[in-house]
Amino acid sequence: MISQNNTQQASQRKLRMGMIGGGRGAFIGGVHRIAAAFDQQIELVCGAFSSKPQRSIDSGKDFFLPEERCYGSFEEMLEREATLPAEEKMDFVVIVTPNHMHFPAAKAALEAGFHVLSDKPATFDLAQAKELQSIIEATGLLYGLTHNYTGYPMVKQARQLIQDGKLGKVRKIIAEYPQGWLASKIEDSSEAKQAGWRTDPTKSGAAGCVGDIATHAENLIEYVTGTEIKELAADLTTFVEGRMLDDDANILLRFENGAKGILHSSQISVGQENNLSIRVYGESGGLEWHQKDPNSLLFSPAHGPTEIHRTGSDYTSAAAAHASRLPAGHVEGYLGAFANIYKAFTSHLRCVLDGTEPDAFALDYPRINEGIRGMAFIEACVASSNNNTEWVSLDL
Amino acid sequence: MISQNNTQQASQRKLRMGMIGGGRGAFIGGVHRIAAAFDQQIELVCGAFSSKPQRSIDSGKDFFLPEERCYGSFEEMLEREATLPAEEKMDFVVIVTPNHMHFPAAKAALEAGFHVLSDKPATFDLAQAKELQSIIEATGLLYGLTHNYTGYPMVKQARQLIQDGKLGKVRKIIAEYPQGWLASKIEDSSEAKQAGWRTDPTKSGAAGCVGDIATHAENLIEYVTGTEIKELAADLTTFVEGRMLDDDANILLRFENGAKGILHSSQISVGQENNLSIRVYGESGGLEWHQKDPNSLLFSPAHGPTEIHRTGSDYTSAAAAHASRLPAGHVEGYLGAFANIYKAFTSHLRCVLDGTEPDAFALDYPRINEGIRGMAFIEACVASSNNNTEWVSLDL
Amino acid sequence: MISQNNTQQASQRKLRMGMIGGGRGAFIGGVHRIAAAFDQQIELVCGAFSSKPQRSIDSGKDFFLPEERCYGSFEEMLEREATLPAEEKMDFVVIVTPNHMHFPAAKAALEAGFHVLSDKPATFDLAQAKELQSIIEATGLLYGLTHNYTGYPMVKQARQLIQDGKLGKVRKIIAEYPQGWLASKIEDSSEAKQAGWRTDPTKSGAAGCVGDIATHAENLIEYVTGTEIKELAADLTTFVEGRMLDDDANILLRFENGAKGILHSSQISVGQENNLSIRVYGESGGLEWHQKDPNSLLFSPAHGPTEIHRTGSDYTSAAAAHASRLPAGHVEGYLGAFANIYKAFTSHLRCVLDGTEPDAFALDYPRINEGIRGMAFIEACVASSNNNTEWVSLDL
Amino acid sequence: MISQNNTQQASQRKLRMGMIGGGRGAFIGGVHRIAAAFDQQIELVCGAFSSKPQRSIDSGKDFFLPEERCYGSFEEMLEREATLPAEEKMDFVVIVTPNHMHFPAAKAALEAGFHVLSDKPATFDLAQAKELQSIIEATGLLYGLTHNYTGYPMVKQARQLIQDGKLGKVRKIIAEYPQGWLASKIEDSSEAKQAGWRTDPTKSGAAGCVGDIATHAENLIEYVTGTEIKELAADLTTFVEGRMLDDDANILLRFENGAKGILHSSQISVGQENNLSIRVYGESGGLEWHQKDPNSLLFSPAHGPTEIHRTGSDYTSAAAAHASRLPAGHVEGYLGAFANIYKAFTSHLRCVLDGTEPDAFALDYPRINEGIRGMAFIEACVASSNNNTEWVSLDL
Repeated sequence: MISQNNTQQASQRKLRMGMIGGGRGAFIGGVHRIAAAFDQQIELVCGAFSSKPQRSIDSGKDFFLPEERCYGSFEEMLEREATLPAEEKMDFVVIVTPNHMHFPAAKAALEAGFHVLSDKPATFDLAQAKELQSIIEATGLLYGLTHNYTGYPMVKQARQLIQDGKLGKVRKIIAEYPQGWLASKIEDSSEAKQAGWRTDPTKSGAAGCVGDIATHAENLIEYVTGTEIKELAADLTTFVEGRMLDDDANILLRFENGAKGILHSSQISVGQENNLSIRVYGESGGLEWHQKDPNSLLFSPAHGPTEIHRTGSDYTSAAAAHASRLPAGHVEGYLGAFANIYKAFTSHLRCVLDGTEPDAFALDYPRINEGIRGMAFIEACVASSNNNTEWVSLDL
Repeated sequence: MISQNNTQQASQRKLRMGMIGGGRGAFIGGVHRIAAAFDQQIELVCGAFSSKPQRSIDSGKDFFLPEERCYGSFEEMLEREATLPAEEKMDFVVIVTPNHMHFPAAKAALEAGFHVLSDKPATFDLAQAKELQSIIEATGLLYGLTHNYTGYPMVKQARQLIQDGKLGKVRKIIAEYPQGWLASKIEDSSEAKQAGWRTDPTKSGAAGCVGDIATHAENLIEYVTGTEIKELAADLTTFVEGRMLDDDANILLRFENGAKGILHSSQISVGQENNLSIRVYGESGGLEWHQKDPNSLLFSPAHGPTEIHRTGSDYTSAAAAHASRLPAGHVEGYLGAFANIYKAFTSHLRCVLDGTEPDAFALDYPRINEGIRGMAFIEACVASSNNNTEWVSLDL
Repeated sequence: MISQNNTQQASQRKLRMGMIGGGRGAFIGGVHRIAAAFDQQIELVCGAFSSKPQRSIDSGKDFFLPEERCYGSFEEMLEREATLPAEEKMDFVVIVTPNHMHFPAAKAALEAGFHVLSDKPATFDLAQAKELQSIIEATGLLYGLTHNYTGYPMVKQARQLIQDGKLGKVRKIIAEYPQGWLASKIEDSSEAKQAGWRTDPTKSGAAGCVGDIATHAENLIEYVTGTEIKELAADLTTFVEGRMLDDDANILLRFENGAKGILHSSQISVGQENNLSIRVYGESGGLEWHQKDPNSLLFSPAHGPTEIHRTGSDYTSAAAAHASRLPAGHVEGYLGAFANIYKAFTSHLRCVLDGTEPDAFALDYPRINEGIRGMAFIEACVASSNNNTEWVSLDL
Repeated sequence: MISQNNTQQASQRKLRMGMIGGGRGAFIGGVHRIAAAFDQQIELVCGAFSSKPQRSIDSGKDFFLPEERCYGSFEEMLEREATLPAEEKMDFVVIVTPNHMHFPAAKAALEAGFHVLSDKPATFDLAQAKELQSIIEATGLLYGLTHNYTGYPMVKQARQLIQDGKLGKVRKIIAEYPQGWLASKIEDSSEAKQAGWRTDPTKSGAAGCVGDIATHAENLIEYVTGTEIKELAADLTTFVEGRMLDDDANILLRFENGAKGILHSSQISVGQENNLSIRVYGESGGLEWHQKDPNSLLFSPAHGPTEIHRTGSDYTSAAAAHASRLPAGHVEGYLGAFANIYKAFTSHLRCVLDGTEPDAFALDYPRINEGIRGMAFIEACVASSNNNTEWVSLDL
C-alpha cells in the first residue's frame, strides 16, 4: 500500500490525475477528460499527452497546464511526479494511448507507485494481462478499466433485475455492437487518426473489430448476467480489401450456466453508428437494453405487459439510482456513464488513501479480472476463427 | 396443363378454393381464409377441414358451406371434387395442416389435377420436397408456398433497393425471429393445440423452432438479398425440459457471394412476440426491416442520413406499390401481406387457366424451389448442431 | 322493425350488402369492400357504384357482379332491390359516397326498409344529422357509422382501462390527426379525385380538414374517455392559397367532467401521413395510443414503470381480445380495425334479423348519436373560428 | 466595459465562476456545476449557495471550496469578491436561485461589475426583465440565460435547416412540454424542495407550469423557427386542489409570419417525464425533434422519404457539429446541451476579456432579449387565460 503523507485527507480535496496519451487529435483522451471533470472530484494536474514533447506541451496548454507538467514520455512523467511533494503530485494515472502502450504504461505507473485507471482493452495480449495482474497484486495499488458502457444506470438496473431473480435462470443472451465507420478503407487517409492504429496489428493487437468493440459487448454480457462465457465459436472477417485486421465478427456463445448466446460486432455495417445492445431471456422474464436509447430498459415478465424502466425513476434499484444524476426524462448520455466509472474508481481510491471502507457503489467498476477475460475473449475469437469456427474454451 | 372446360373465363369470375386442414381451433386456417377473402378474388367452396367428418362439417358451417362439400378426408375431397362440373369444382386447394400432412396432401391434389397452395414448410423432409418438385414438374400444375412475410411491401422495397445496387455488394446479413410463447411447457396443456403438433417430431419434422420460424427468416434473407446461403454452422437447443424438439437456434451463415451472416430464432425468448427482422449491409449502403413495424424500411446510404421508406409512399418501387392497398400511414399488417401471396398466386393461376401471360407481379410468390431450400436449411441446421456446430453446406 | 321473411336464418348465411358509391378510382369504397370481406360474413350483392350507369356496371365487373345488379343510381337500386325475393335481396346498404350524398342516400335507404352502414361524417350538416336520427327512430332500422379507428383492439383496451378506473378522474386529453398530403394545391390536378371533393364546400360540407379527419379524433376522444366535449375554441386556417376550405385546425377543448384538452389536425403537415393519436392523463394514470403503431398502448400508472399493452396478449380486456384476430406480434392493421366495425354491425344485424339478443360486442359500433356529435363538433369549430376563437358550446 | 487588469489573458486560463444559489438539496445548481465543469474551461471559485451561512459553507465543502469564499448572501459575495486581486476574483456569477431572486441577484452582480449567467426565467415579471435590460445595456456587461434545450446539436440542425430554406415558409408549429411529477400535491411534503418554490406564487411568479417549462418551449420555437409569436390564446388550469399556480396549459399561437401553432405544457400528465418536443411544418418540408431522443432530428422533404439527421454525423451543419463532442451514436444528453450554453457564454466572455472578436458560435446563446420575450409570454398566457382565452398580443 502506498504511504499517504498528504497533509489533507483525500476526502477533502480533489484527486490529482495524470494522463498518458490523449493529445490533440485523439478521441478517447477528450472523453476521459470530460468524464473526469464531470463530478468535480478530480483535477488534471499533468500529462504525457504525446511522445513528441512539444505536442505534449501544446496539448497541455489546451487544459491550462503548466509546461513543466507536460511531459514528453510517461517514463519522464512517472519519474518526476514521484519526486513532487505529496500535496502536489498526482494520485493516479489514466492511460488513454493506443492498445499496445496500455501494458508498459500501466506496469511503469504501478511500479512507480501510482494507482492506474486504463482504457480498454487492458493489454496487447492475454499474457500481458496476466502479468499485469501479478504486478497489481504485488503493488497493492488500484487498477480500473474503463469498460464505460457498464456505467449506464439502466445497465445496472438490468444487472439488478437478474440478481433479484426477475428473469429466473438465464437461457439466452444476445449482444450486438455494430458500427459502420470502417466500411471503406479510411485508414489510408492521413487524417484518419482513429482508424489508423485500430487497423494496425502492431498497435491494436490480434484483432480489430473484436478488440475494439466486441470486448465491450463481452464485458457487458458478463456484467449484466453474472454468467461467464464458457466457450465460443467465431467467424471473423476482413471485408475491406487490404485491411490487416478483422472488421466484422459473428460469434456463438455457450455459458457456464448452460445458457446460449450470440455476440456480433461490426465496423462495416453502413448506417450503424455505435449500436451496442444486449438482450437476455430467462425462464421467467426477458430484458433488452440499447445504448442508442440508454435511459430505457425493457423488462418483460413471463406474464403481463412489458415494462419500460427509465433512468431517474423512483422505482429503480439503488445501483441505478446511484448512477443517475438527473430527474427522469433529462437524457443521461455516454459521458455520464463514462463518468460513473471515474466516480466509483475515485470513491474507492479516496477510501484507500484515507483508510476507510468503500461501500458497494465504490467497488462497482471493472478491474484486471475483467481485463483478463477480455483478452482471453479476443484470443479465443481469433483462435476459433482461424480453425474454421471450432469451439474454443474461455476457461482461464 | 390442366384442360380448361369452364364455360366462363377465369378472369371474369372468382377462383374456387378447397381447403385441407384449418378446422375449428386451428390458427393458420383462419389466417388463410381471411387472406383468401381479402381481395375478393377467391371463393372458398369446399374443405376437408378435419379428419373427423363431423368436425369438418361443423367447421364448414362456420363459413356457410353446404354439408356435401365438407369432406372427412382430403382423399375424399379430391375424388369428389374431380367429378364436379367445371363451373362448380374447385380450381385449387390450399393446404393448412400440420407439417407432416403437407406432402401427402399436395401430392394427392396435384395428381388429382388440382393446383396447390401450401403452408410452409413445404414437406416433412428434404427428400419429400425433391419428390414433390418432380410431381409438380410432371403435372405442370402450379404450386405456391405461403412464406407470407415476403408479401410485405417494404420487404419488396428492400429487395428492389438491393437489386438496384443501392447497397453495393452485400457483405453482412442478420436475420432474427424470436418468439417467447413456448418458454414453458405449454404443449402439455390440452388446449394448447398450436404448441402440441409443433413440438411433436412426428408431426413437425426434424426441427421445432428451426422448422417453424427460422425457415421464414431463411426465406426472407434469400428473397431480399438475392444471395443464397452456401453453408451454415448451427447451435440448436431445447431449453424446456422434456420438449422433444429444439426451441432455440443460433446459426452462423456464409453466402455464395462471400457475405457472412447470422440467423437466430427462438421460441423461449420471454416477451418477444413475433419479431422477425432482417438487416443487410453492403459496400455502399445498409437497410433494416422489422416485422413489428412492417411499413417502415430504414435505408442508410454510405453518406448522408438514414431514410425511412414507408409503405404507400409515392417514391416506392413498383413491386412495393403493387403490394400496398392503402395510402401511406394507414397501417398495412400481416393479413395484407399474407393476402399478397394469394394475390400473386391467383393472378398467375388465372393466366394459366385463361392461357394468358403473367406479369412480373403475378410471378412474385414462393414456390417449390423455395420449399426445397427451406427443407435443406432445416436439415443442415440439425446436422450441424448434431456435429458440434460444424459447417454444413447447403449446396443442393 | 323490418319484417323478416327470409327462408333461412341470418345466422346461417352471409349477409347481403349493397354499396352506394365506391366505383373505380374511389379510395374508401375499396376499403369498405375489403373490410366487409374480411370475416367472410358478408356478400356484396349489388351496388350503385357511380352515377354514371356504365361506370357503375364496369365497377361491378371488378367484383364479379352481374350487370343487372349494378345500378346507375341509388334510387334505382333501392327500388329494384326492394322487389327481389327475400332470399336474394340485399340486407343492408353501405354508403361510401362523398359527404354531401350521405344523408339523401341514408334517408332513401332507410325509407325503403334497408339497414344502413355509412361512412363518416354522417351528413352534410347538423340539421341533416338530427333529421336522420328521426328517420332512424321512425323506421326502427339499424344505422352504423364507420368511425373505423375505434375498431382497433388497443383503442378498446384504452377505453377499458379508463372504465376500470385505472387512470382515475380524467384531467387532460390530447388528440392529434396530422396529415401532409394537401400541402400543395393538388386538387387542381385532374387525377386528384380524393383531393377534389374533400376541398369542395358543396361536397365536403362546412369544413375541410375538420370534417374529414378532426371528426375522427373527436370521436376517438369521446369513445376512449367516455367524457363529452362541453365547449371548444378553434382556430382554423386555409394555408394553401385558393383552397376553399380549412386545411389546418387548432382546437382547445373543455369537457363535461372538468377535463381540458387539445385537438389539432392538419392536411398541410409535410411528412405526416395519417398520424391520429390520443393521450389521456388522469389523477392516477396516463395512456397513449398512436395509430402509426396501433398494436401498442402505453399505460403509465402513477407509480411504477410504463407498460406496453399489446394487441393479442393474454392480459388484454375482453373487448380488445374480441377485436383481435391474430396472436400477439402479427401486426393487425387499419383494415382489421375497419372490419371490426363491420363485424359488430353485422353481428347486431343478424340478431335483429333473427330476433335474438345482441351481446356487448355486437353493440360496440358508432351510430347516429356519434354522427350528431360529429356534425355538432364541425359546426362548433367553424363558428368558433369565425368568431376569433371564442368558446362555443357543444351542448345539443 | 469592465477594465481588465488580469495578469494573464483570459484565453490562457480557466474562467472563474461564482455561484448564487445551488446549495445542498437543490437540483439545478448541481446541473450548472456539471455543465460548467464539462469542458474544463471554468473553475468554481466561490459561492453564496444558501442564505444560511453555515449551509453555504457546508455546500461549498462539497466542491472543495475554502470557507472564506462560501458566502452567506450574494450581497456579501459581490462585495468581497470585488475587492480581490484580479487574478483571484471571479469573472462572472451564475444565478441558480428560485425565480424571485433572479432579478435582484443579477442586478446586484451587474452593478458590482460582474458578468452574469442566469437560470431562466430571467426575472419574476416582465417589468423586471425590462429593467434588467436597461442595467445590462448601462453596464455593458454580458448576460446569458440558460435556456439549455437550445444547446442540443439537433436543435441547432433544425434551426439551420429552416434558415437554409429546406422547409420553405413555415406554416405550423407544435411545441409540447408535458411532465407528470406534480400530478399530486407533493409540495406539501417537507422533502419536496423542488415542488415547493415552483408552486409558490411568491417565489415562482405569475405562473407555475407556464413559467417553469412552457417558457422553454416558447424559447425553443422562436430559436428554431426564427419566427416570433405575435399573439396567443391560453387556457391555464390548476388541476391539483389547493395548488396556488397553474399546473397545465393549453395555448394557441399565431406568428408574425402568418404561421399558426400550438404550445401545451403540463405538470400533471402522469407518466410523462420531461417530454419537450417541437414540430415545424413549412410549404416544402417538415421537421420533428423530441428531447427524449435528442440526437435524432426527423426531416421530411415534400417529396421523398423522411430523413433521420443524427448528432455527430458528417452531414450536419457547422452549428450542430460545433455543439457535438462525440462521434455519432455516442449518446449526447442533457448535460452536454447545457454545457453548450456555458461553452458559448464563456467563449464570448473570453473575447470580451481579451478584446478579441467572437465568432458566430460564441454568440449563439440566449440573452436578455430572450428573457424579456419569455416574461412577456408568461404574462400574456396569464392575461389570456384570465379573460376566457381571448387573444393577447406579444408585441413588446
